[in-house]
Amino acid sequence: MDFRILSRDPETKARTGLLELPHGVVETPVFMPVGTAATVKGVHQRELAGDLNVSLILGNTYHLYLRPGIDIIKSAGGLHQFMNWTKPVLTDSGGYQVFSLAAQRKLTEEGAAFQSHIDGSKHFFTPENIIDYQREIGADIIMAFDECAPYPCEPAYAKKSVELTHRWLDRGVDHFNETSPFYGYEQMLFPIVQGSIYPDLRKMSSEKIASAGMGGNAIGGLSVGEPEEDMYTMVDLVTSILPEDRPRYLMGVGTPVNILESVALGIDMFDCVIPTRNGRNGMLFTANGIINIKNEKWKDDFTPVDPEGNTFVDTQYSRAYLRHLVISKEMLGGQIATIHNLGFYLRLMKEIREQIRNGGFRKWKEKMIKKLSERL
Amino acid sequence: MDFRILSRDPETKARTGLLELPHGVVETPVFMPVGTAATVKGVHQRELAGDLNVSLILGNTYHLYLRPGIDIIKSAGGLHQFMNWTKPVLTDSGGYQVFSLAAQRKLTEEGAAFQSHIDGSKHFFTPENIIDYQREIGADIIMAFDECAPYPCEPAYAKKSVELTHRWLDRGVDHFNETSPFYGYEQMLFPIVQGSIYPDLRKMSSEKIASAGMGGNAIGGLSVGEPEEDMYTMVDLVTSILPEDRPRYLMGVGTPVNILESVALGIDMFDCVIPTRNGRNGMLFTANGIINIKNEKWKDDFTPVDPEGNTFVDTQYSRAYLRHLVISKEMLGGQIATIHNLGFYLRLMKEIREQIRNGGFRKWKEKMIKKLSERL
Repeated sequence: MDFRILSRDPETKARTGLLELPHGVVETPVFMPVGTAATVKGVHQRELAGDLNVSLILGNTYHLYLRPGIDIIKSAGGLHQFMNWTKPVLTDSGGYQVFSLAAQRKLTEEGAAFQSHIDGSKHFFTPENIIDYQREIGADIIMAFDECAPYPCEPAYAKKSVELTHRWLDRGVDHFNETSPFYGYEQMLFPIVQGSIYPDLRKMSSEKIASAGMGGNAIGGLSVGEPEEDMYTMVDLVTSILPEDRPRYLMGVGTPVNILESVALGIDMFDCVIPTRNGRNGMLFTANGIINIKNEKWKDDFTPVDPEGNTFVDTQYSRAYLRHLVISKEMLGGQIATIHNLGFYLRLMKEIREQIRNGGFRKWKEKMIKKLSERL
Repeated sequence: MDFRILSRDPETKARTGLLELPHGVVETPVFMPVGTAATVKGVHQRELAGDLNVSLILGNTYHLYLRPGIDIIKSAGGLHQFMNWTKPVLTDSGGYQVFSLAAQRKLTEEGAAFQSHIDGSKHFFTPENIIDYQREIGADIIMAFDECAPYPCEPAYAKKSVELTHRWLDRGVDHFNETSPFYGYEQMLFPIVQGSIYPDLRKMSSEKIASAGMGGNAIGGLSVGEPEEDMYTMVDLVTSILPEDRPRYLMGVGTPVNILESVALGIDMFDCVIPTRNGRNGMLFTANGIINIKNEKWKDDFTPVDPEGNTFVDTQYSRAYLRHLVISKEMLGGQIATIHNLGFYLRLMKEIREQIRNGGFRKWKEKMIKKLSERL
């Protein structure tokens, strides 16, 4: 596994790179569609790979652990085999889901006890077993177990939380080093910077995470309700400390504008449910702004979903038809909107990489941000 | 428009034919996937046309009238344009939905008053306006407005009902003859035989429907809860009276076994929600029997969904994966099961046509019925 920076933008911290993983090479900056429970909702694998040319998807250890269960994924020969996805996968450690989704969670030094949001059954995640589970899932990139502090968060709690995350990281790294890959190919472990919106905590956490010497690093605990300016300030601070020659992953972010701004601050990897979840609710991203397809104004607009779009749904279906499907809660509405939005995100990432290579990224970004914020 | 019988089975009433429609040629016997509200749930149009090679789909006038509304479909240039489906469409007249779905329905000689099941708004269908709506939808084949009597049904009610359906048919045919196609191509009007499970009523209705001299004829009011033997008895009786040289459409039927038996009784066209609706609930049809994919026994069966299937989902996904998706209520589960089941139905129809042509239909049918009834 290898990360090479191919070009740098002279005016920002943006860069392009190549991340070589066991299941394929990923061009960065990259956006990972969220495949929570071994599926990107509403999208066939051949559409992900063929129509969208997705190079990396995200799975959720929390969800996969509960359903279908690690034993089933192991019997299948890993997540790639189970879901028939041959390209790279990154798994989230489950920390975020335990704290946002599970019931009756209880945090101790040892780990996190929680009850399944599905059937109330009791479980216990530790920094060690989370490594084991992700080894058994077989993701190309696995994440350290962390506590994702809520927002807002008192400084004292944030400090306690980030320190616990750091002790968990040490245990996770030890366990990672003591264990072997389950399927014969190497896996990368990414630690996660926490620290809420407190610069001193983010600085301390970045230094700790950098010192772990992993092949890539992540930033967690942002885009959880804080003002966007605070998020950008934290990202800027953290990327000034994390090693320059390793990929940086900003977890759970974000809107197209968030991505443009964060690339400028040195981020290489993103994941977010916005294009998929908001798509299913009728929100479409286009190069000219945002469409709420449920609006009355689209009811007799028989022009294509997105004349500038490059997926089959953009030209094969009209806005009026998509509006009808979304309003009627037809499955195909969510399917079309999801493919459209993922196509838009993937194309945005491609254009970002091109603009960085051409040296015009900053100027283009400012122009794009104005257009993308429009409401059509 | 033209229907030609190409071959006849020497041992049953089965036959193969070609039905030429404005949007394409349909090989019969044919199964029409149900596209209730301008979409076959969970299936992209390119999958219907390309992967499944569907030649004819069914739309529901009741649903399309309520949502998106006839005015929107008219503005789009008809249903084909609206949903981007270039091959033939048949629309159900709405009679069945008014009696099974709508609230506060009230039947008079003039027509059927009802309230929308979506928003309670009041509407009135007549034999005439149903012709107008279907002209504006632009289906290749349109259906006469009928009353679909419930099962069980007293003989006196069934008689009153079938007589009303016949008077409505006269009005519908007059209106059809007085009006012109809306989009420049001819449309066929199919009248519908009713009469519950009473041979005398079915005979009377068949004679009435035959006398209308339409290009094709339908049988309604079956598969509504009556014993299967009664259904077959009625079909056998009706097909002995309906003109031999016109296509015969058995509405809302059925299981693969129902289709095999009804083809043997001289039926040429079928539609049914079973492959799509039951598929979404995890019921899969295969050449070796029926699978309830939710069963525990499939949880670690990593063999293909259907090794003998011929759609991409059959070989790209495993039974264990599909089970996980259906149990987790993931959209992709319904999408896979729907494409699998439609692929199975379409393949069954193709084999039926081949067996009729080869003269081995009856023997093959008996063998298939045994296999198809197995529970795997």
